[in-house]
Amino acid sequence: MKPSIPKGTRDFSPEQVVKRNYIFDTIKDVFVKYGYQPIETPTMENLSTLTGKYGEEGDKLLFKVLNNGDYLAKADKEALAAQDAQKLTSSISKRGLRYDLTVPFARYVVMHQNDITFPFKRYQIQPVWRADRPQKGRYQEFYQCDVDVVGSDSLMYEAELVQIYDEVFAKLGIKVFVKVNNRKVLYGMAEAAGIADQFMTMTIAIDKLDKIGLEGVRKEMEGRGISSAAVTQIENMLQLKSLDELEKAFQQSPTGLKGIEELRQFHQYFDTKAPSNRVEFDITLARGLNYYTGCIFEVAVDTSVESQKEVVMGSIGGGGRYDDLTGVFGLKNVSGVGVSFGAARIYDVMEELNLYPEDSGNQLQILFIALDQAAHQYAFDCLNKVRAANINAELYPSPAKMKKQMKYATARNAQYTIIIGSNEMESGLLSFKNKDMRESLTLDAIIERLKL
Amino acid sequence: MKPSIPKGTRDFSPEQVVKRNYIFDTIKDVFVKYGYQPIETPTMENLSTLTGKYGEEGDKLLFKVLNNGDYLAKADKEALAAQDAQKLTSSISKRGLRYDLTVPFARYVVMHQNDITFPFKRYQIQPVWRADRPQKGRYQEFYQCDVDVVGSDSLMYEAELVQIYDEVFAKLGIKVFVKVNNRKVLYGMAEAAGIADQFMTMTIAIDKLDKIGLEGVRKEMEGRGISSAAVTQIENMLQLKSLDELEKAFQQSPTGLKGIEELRQFHQYFDTKAPSNRVEFDITLARGLNYYTGCIFEVAVDTSVESQKEVVMGSIGGGGRYDDLTGVFGLKNVSGVGVSFGAARIYDVMEELNLYPEDSGNQLQILFIALDQAAHQYAFDCLNKVRAANINAELYPSPAKMKKQMKYATARNAQYTIIIGSNEMESGLLSFKNKDMRESLTLDAIIERLKL
Repeated sequence: MKPSIPKGTRDFSPEQVVKRNYIFDTIKDVFVKYGYQPIETPTMENLSTLTGKYGEEGDKLLFKVLNNGDYLAKADKEALAAQDAQKLTSSISKRGLRYDLTVPFARYVVMHQNDITFPFKRYQIQPVWRADRPQKGRYQEFYQCDVDVVGSDSLMYEAELVQIYDEVFAKLGIKVFVKVNNRKVLYGMAEAAGIADQFMTMTIAIDKLDKIGLEGVRKEMEGRGISSAAVTQIENMLQLKSLDELEKAFQQSPTGLKGIEELRQFHQYFDTKAPSNRVEFDITLARGLNYYTGCIFEVAVDTSVESQKEVVMGSIGGGGRYDDLTGVFGLKNVSGVGVSFGAARIYDVMEELNLYPEDSGNQLQILFIALDQAAHQYAFDCLNKVRAANINAELYPSPAKMKKQMKYATARNAQYTIIIGSNEMESGLLSFKNKDMRESLTLDAIIERLKL
Repeated sequence: MKPSIPKGTRDFSPEQVVKRNYIFDTIKDVFVKYGYQPIETPTMENLSTLTGKYGEEGDKLLFKVLNNGDYLAKADKEALAAQDAQKLTSSISKRGLRYDLTVPFARYVVMHQNDITFPFKRYQIQPVWRADRPQKGRYQEFYQCDVDVVGSDSLMYEAELVQIYDEVFAKLGIKVFVKVNNRKVLYGMAEAAGIADQFMTMTIAIDKLDKIGLEGVRKEMEGRGISSAAVTQIENMLQLKSLDELEKAFQQSPTGLKGIEELRQFHQYFDTKAPSNRVEFDITLARGLNYYTGCIFEVAVDTSVESQKEVVMGSIGGGGRYDDLTGVFGLKNVSGVGVSFGAARIYDVMEELNLYPEDSGNQLQILFIALDQAAHQYAFDCLNKVRAANINAELYPSPAKMKKQMKYATARNAQYTIIIGSNEMESGLLSFKNKDMRESLTLDAIIERLKL
């Protein structure tokens, strides 16, 4: 048989794992510095936890795990007779694969509420699974990387999370553009235009602005029953660039004014330190169908930077404040705010801009090459010594032909090779080289040169 | 609804993740130093890859994922009519969850053979899933941690892998006892006793020696049709402690002699460096039903060490040489050797012996506490500055009651608290304290004291 893996899944090669872990480690270090702690939740959740949380489309995209043993014994006989797969499922499958990290986190907070001291600052980096039709850049298994704080409504955390974005991308070497808005400001626009009851319709239309343009947004709003007068008012407000201007427009909208106050509080914290990246208020930022209720954020590669102007990539991060994450599991009034990093897209941007460091600490520093069996044994001794000095090193497993051993050195991207034959054993001077240099050194001198 | 997680699965709290990652990071650092590279394989594999690789029992323990969409459309109608779950499964489920890391690794090597330069030294740390009946200490989802090299039959790698065991456990602070044997030596015993055709029966019986004693092993062998004379011969050989003695007994067994030669070659490499732990030949080590063909290893906590004498725990690692890992996927003659670390058991031993370091680099170093709103804003400034110096720090989100803020400091296990009120803002001298000390210092002096 010729082996294969399921469509939409991937193997990760050493090079890919090392690069991906470089990104994750950079992110984690910042999370820890800001006081966030890691949790992990199981790959399988009860379907009762997952179902109904991601809309009807989402339910269809859940991977469901067949019950073990004689799963037909308890199957829904009617559904079976009718060959109704959809109806049958819940009777033969009670577990599903994690679809995102948000619902498991909410479930975690509710289950462990008595062990948690709030505010609870957690991060979580784990894969999720979605039965989407696989296509270029879209996989059925991919990592999510979320950081949230629940149990406090302080705007300090909004500021802190944007600082985290700022610092992570500075460390990775990607210049980004962080857009900031507030759902209450969007609601304020709807309220000021007299269409508060059509708030979601308006928000979903505005969310498409980048794709369909202002004219498209107008058409969509009108097509969905928002009056021309209201649409004109909304259009005008979408042109406003400052909170002060908006404040005037919101005199009749208490929610809109609250949104402006929240954005000002955010700035009071955030402006205490100059960011490395552009962080700007953008009234057109909407964040689609999500459950946000306060500040919202989105991060994109800053294509106004010369070296990044060719990058074509959607958002590489986003998040916001949600007022009732855990309510669905029975714990009310727990406010939270969180952001996530689009790990796969960040990976691709780093690749395109060639931002991975040459040595991420994982590189093979020395490959020993032995010319005969006696030299091989001698080289193994040397290997012990360099490893004892914490140098990453290997010995080719046999005194094979030089060409074969050098090919291995190249494939392993070894920083240096050390070639050992009878001359080297006699003199103690080893041939230490890479593509740019070649020296004869004692092992001690080599260790001195390389050791951490 | 009251949320729960599936039986046999676990949430990992921050404390647990930090401890587990301490173990994994220690192991990974050693793997990298020895030239091993990470790979990752998908959670879901095709059931055709997994089925038949783990015996009949194993097949039953595979978690199977229901096909998406109208999975009944292609269901086996006969099996459906007969309500035969076992027969139906393959027609409604084509994917399963990874059961171990060995089969996916073999599949990976075969699929990527043209991109791999052999010998291929890889490690892999990922969870696996088994539908075992959950019980204390046995979970349906747990991490495996494997390190293997394929594409070379050099005994140097056996030595290197035992060195890795030795170094990892030295770093973790657990004294261990590494038993070494060779499947060819076991075969030699069978051959010398004239029961080569009953080699697996003998091996399975010897594998139970720890549990059922020598008398039990004798009974099992006799009960399964090995002659009394042969059993006596085997018993006598099991008493032998040295390779030299065995060599005499194996004069009629070429395979047995080959096993002894392999063990001597192993020692030629391994003895070049004094290990930190006991590493001993043990002719009674059998490693059960596994597919090993050469050297085999098993690691246990060394209970002869005073501080560890109370530890009751089975093997915390094991492995060996297998000659045909990839054959089942069509790539013949690829020899490999590998060992694995029993992560969950190591975790428990570390817990029992209290071996986790107090500060694993993840600890919150400073919690700022503000006494009023002005101090809170001032403290946020201070927070920016200490974080800029790479100090892990947090500010409680509001100037709440001191008692509440101190409770949070305790829950977060903060190394120090810094309390800020109007006096501190005026003088610039901050109250820097923990349970053992209290000083008034400027922020700069505090940063100087703590920074990396």
